[in-house]
Parts: sequence; C-alpha cells; structure tokens
Amino acid sequence: MKKILLLTTGGTIASRPTEGGLSPEMDGAGLLSRLGGAADSYALTIRDLLRLDSSNIQPEEWQLIARAVYEARDGFDGVVITHCTDTMAYTASVLSFMLQNISIPVVLTGAQLPIEHPLTDALENMRTALAMASSGVGGVFLAFDRKVILGTRAVKTRTTDFDAFESVNWPLAGHVDAGGLHICREAIPERKGECLLREKLCRDVFLIKLTPGLNPEIFDMLLAMHYRGVVIEAFGAGGLHFIRRDLIAKLHAAARAGVSVVVCSQCLYERSDFSLYEVGQRALAQGVIQGYDMTTEAAVTKLMWALGQTGESEKVRELFQRSLCGEVAVDQE
Amino acid sequence: MKKILLLTTGGTIASRPTEGGLSPEMDGAGLLSRLGGAADSYALTIRDLLRLDSSNIQPEEWQLIARAVYEARDGFDGVVITHCTDTMAYTASVLSFMLQNISIPVVLTGAQLPIEHPLTDALENMRTALAMASSGVGGVFLAFDRKVILGTRAVKTRTTDFDAFESVNWPLAGHVDAGGLHICREAIPERKGECLLREKLCRDVFLIKLTPGLNPEIFDMLLAMHYRGVVIEAFGAGGLHFIRRDLIAKLHAAARAGVSVVVCSQCLYERSDFSLYEVGQRALAQGVIQGYDMTTEAAVTKLMWALGQTGESEKVRELFQRSLCGEVAVDQE
Repeated sequence: MKKILLLTTGGTIASRPTEGGLSPEMDGAGLLSRLGGAADSYALTIRDLLRLDSSNIQPEEWQLIARAVYEARDGFDGVVITHCTDTMAYTASVLSFMLQNISIPVVLTGAQLPIEHPLTDALENMRTALAMASSGVGGVFLAFDRKVILGTRAVKTRTTDFDAFESVNWPLAGHVDAGGLHICREAIPERKGECLLREKLCRDVFLIKLTPGLNPEIFDMLLAMHYRGVVIEAFGAGGLHFIRRDLIAKLHAAARAGVSVVVCSQCLYERSDFSLYEVGQRALAQGVIQGYDMTTEAAVTKLMWALGQTGESEKVRELFQRSLCGEVAVDQE
Repeated sequence: MKKILLLTTGGTIASRPTEGGLSPEMDGAGLLSRLGGAADSYALTIRDLLRLDSSNIQPEEWQLIARAVYEARDGFDGVVITHCTDTMAYTASVLSFMLQNISIPVVLTGAQLPIEHPLTDALENMRTALAMASSGVGGVFLAFDRKVILGTRAVKTRTTDFDAFESVNWPLAGHVDAGGLHICREAIPERKGECLLREKLCRDVFLIKLTPGLNPEIFDMLLAMHYRGVVIEAFGAGGLHFIRRDLIAKLHAAARAGVSVVVCSQCLYERSDFSLYEVGQRALAQGVIQGYDMTTEAAVTKLMWALGQTGESEKVRELFQRSLCGEVAVDQE
C-alpha cells in the first residue's frame, strides 16, 4: 500500500457556511472521513499545515508548504496538498521551481464546492489526486475534474464550472477514465538531478497587464518602490505602445536600473514572440526577457524564484533561457 | 447594393515586410484590390484614417474612429473598420460605449497574417465583416474566422491561430457557413434610443491583475498619481488577500478618495461574484463595484468611458449597475 502524506491548507474544499460566508473549518481527518472507502487503498498520514481561505496563500505560505513537502520526500511515496482553487495555479507553479527534480509526485487539489456539499466535486478531485500521488511519477501536479496538469502549466480559467483548470500550451500529464489513471509520458519533464529545496523568493515582482494608453510613468513608480522584477502581459504576440506614451523608453530605464523585465502575452493561449514586430525587437534590444509560451502564473513565480536565487540580472536571464520544470518551450526559438 | 464605408487604421492585415519587421503600408484601395470579386457586391467608400501598427491604438485613436463612424451613420448602411488584432477587443468594447444605440452595423476586423500573404486569413475575415456590415443589425461587432462577436464580449485569446477571438460569456452574434451569414438574435442587445456620440474618456484608469502577496502600497501610488479608476482582476470568483498585506484596507482608502474600483476575475470564463466569500463581502462594503461577467476589456473601457461622462462616483456606480450594450448580465444579481 502506497504511503501518502495529506497536507491540508484550507480552501473551499474544507469550507463550511458561516455567518460571514464560507470559511475553511475542516481538517484533514474531516476531509478523509468524507471520502469513505476511497481512502482505504492508501496508507495515509495527515498533516494540517494551514487553514486559510481562498486568496491568503502568499509567498510565506509557499515556503511553508515547500518545506513540508521537502521533509516528506524520503518517507512517503507521494504528497497530496488540499488548497484553495483561486491561487492554486500560482502555488503549483512556484512549488515546481522550489522543489525541482523532486522524485515523488506532489499533487495539489481542491474543489469548487465544499466536500460536505451534496453536489461537491471534492470527492472526485481527491480520488484523482490520490491516484496521481501513488503513480511514482516525480514532479509537481494539479489534479482537478479527472485531469492531471503539470504544475507550471495550470491556469484557473473558470470561476464556477467543475472543469475549472486548463493545461495551457502543454498536453495533460494525465487523465482518468474507466481504464484508470493514464499518464502522458511526453508531458512529464525529465528530472535533471537531485532535489534541493530552493525556497528563497523575491517578493518585489510586479505584474502589469497592459491596457491601451497605459501611462508609462508606472515604471518610474515601480523603480521608486524598489521593485526588482516586472512581468508584462503585452498585447497579442508581443505588442507595446510607444507613440505618445513610450513604454520602450521606460523598459530601457528599467533595464539600466537593474530591474529584470519578462514579457509574455495577455492572450491565454499560444506563444508570444517579441521578434515579430519592430516594437518587440526594440523591446528585446532593451534587455527584455521573452516569456514565450509560459503562463503568467509561471512567469511571475519563476521571476520571484529566480530573483530569490541570484542578485545578478544576467543570471536571471540565463534561468529564463531554459526550461527548469516544463514551464517553457525555448527550443522553438 | 448596400453602401458600406471602409475605415482603415493599419494593423497586420495591411502590413508588408520591412527591414524593421512588419509595417502597415497598405491603404484601403490596396486591401480592396486583393479581395477580387468579393468586393463587387457592395457599394464601397474608402476612408484611410490611420496607419498604425499593432499596439499604438490608444484613447485618442478611439475618439478619432468613433467620430468617423458617427459621421457616417446616416450616409451608409454599415461600416467596416480594419484594425490591428492585438488591441481590437479593447477598441470594439470602447466603441460600443461611445456609440451606444447606433442603428447601423459597425464591424471591426483584421488578420493574423497580412492580406498579401499566400495563406492570409484577411480575405475570409473581410468577407465576413462586409456581410455583417450589410446585415442591417445595429451595433458594434468584431468579425473574425467566420464568427461575428458582440463588441463588448470579444477577447483575443490566441496569438497565432486564425481562430484568435472568443465571445466570452455570451453567444456568438453570428456565424458564416454554406447557408450564408446567420445572425443570432438573442445575442443582439436591444437599442434603447437614439445614438449620441459620447466620446469623452478618462485616461486615468489602471488595471491591476492580482498576484499572490501583491504589496498593497501600489494603491497609495495610484492615488498619488491621481488615478480616478482602478479595475482589479481578482483571484477566482472574487478573492483578494488581506492577511499580512491588507488589500481591503486600501480599497477603503481608495473609495474615500473618490476612486472608482471595479472588481472582476482573472479567470477568462464565467462570472465573478464577490458576495460568495467573507473577503469579497468586505470589499463590497468598501464601495467596490462588481464586474460580474464582464470581460476585462469591457470593464476597463467602460470605466474609462463612465469617468469621462461624470465626475461623481455614485453616477459611475449607477452606470455599472446596468448593461448599456450587452457588456454585463446584471439581472442575475
């Protein structure tokens, strides 16, 4: 019987109605009691780590979760983490960077409806997560609605549907049907060495989703606030405005000030490519880093992580020039 | 024969390769010459308005385009606007607000590949746009890949696929097949009066796409920069963090300073609802305006437009409590 660690952090899955709205009241024992016989196939150990609602999972919590997983890597065959869905894609991405090359499956899951709700999706999601955690496939994953998604490729795209997450620009890592859990080997990045806990993060990273006519002065403000990294969701494959309001000049100033700037697309799907248009080429000439086909969640957390590892912008750029855990297809360059 | 005005503004559709990348070199006559016989079914008048590349369409250009359309409303049966795809969804949204109740079809289109490229999608898109412009159905629309999308519901979701736009949380306004152009009447909002040109816009609107742990001080900076409106893409159906970094307190401060704050979801699909969780209820208590099922493009441009019409935040709130041109389903409240 596979030894699985269940780490709980709160979220809708563990929530009960209270006067102030839903609140994460249940612990791991409560969650497992609702699973019935489905839990009997695994040797489960519970660790209640946090009891937070939807959107209070922040870098400090990411570090706490990463440490708990790292400590469990030798004693367990897999880890299931129950988590709020709203920020789960960010957590899945950042754990992928902090726990690169982990040899056991680490599977985040949660639910759109509390596990005690008669129509809950939690039971289905927990079962998928437990099966993936027993699969022996190392890496960080997100299990939801009978799908398993590579941690760095998950995006929450729907607010209420049970099919709430998509695997963006990457095949599913697995799916469940009457044949059981099917793993898609091409979707699993190769491990490249030992797992080391690399938990340091830089919190001074800002995400700008461009809107037409955005005042470039925002960059001056971010420099004044000592931000060290900026991710820009540009228009389409890589558009930025520069007439009247010159974002390109500000990118230049940011690069000179040692700020690392990563550009990706505000389109959900497909690859950005800043070399297509003149304006993008000018941005790249200013030292801007391409995000290619990364999700915004992966780009933001990779930049926080990379700036936590090094103070040198050239090294940050190097870290973005390769895929660390399936987050980017750079070989298409 | 229907009288159609073709307004050109540049974009990939009109681009040719140059040393510095693609550049919008072609005028309306050039575009029409590529259409061959497909243009013969319409009495076309050309007006070359702008020749801008992808991402330089900004509020000033929106006003220029709106004025040109408004002037054409009596002399033509419809208007086709060729436009870059990267910011087209924003333009489609803002024109919908500026030209409410327009009695003729105003149809934006463009292409993922230049009209002179052997594999271009421009010919298909132009044909769909011309057919929609001749349909007699008043309103602002976006035509792409044999689909017609209501202006306030269009989002560019793909950087390279010809199927680049989706109609988000709303049925298609039309589609083309061997039976011709089919209009979906349920997708066409009712006109509520005469069309008046309401072109004033407030440019001091900022979009924040939340990331976990975002430093709430950004709100102080936006206040210092005299922003009058903020749109927040929250997590999931309406999550904001408030432990350690209290965004709720900052929303309170912004509301007191007279800043209009609209909250929507960073999930692409489905409706946000801030009343579900305690944290959202607290945000609403601070005077935050719900975006419900609006696209971010519609929320940002509606706020720019609403703040251009009135200086009173209570009136801005009222404008958001109803659908002006199909942009929001508030009756589900």
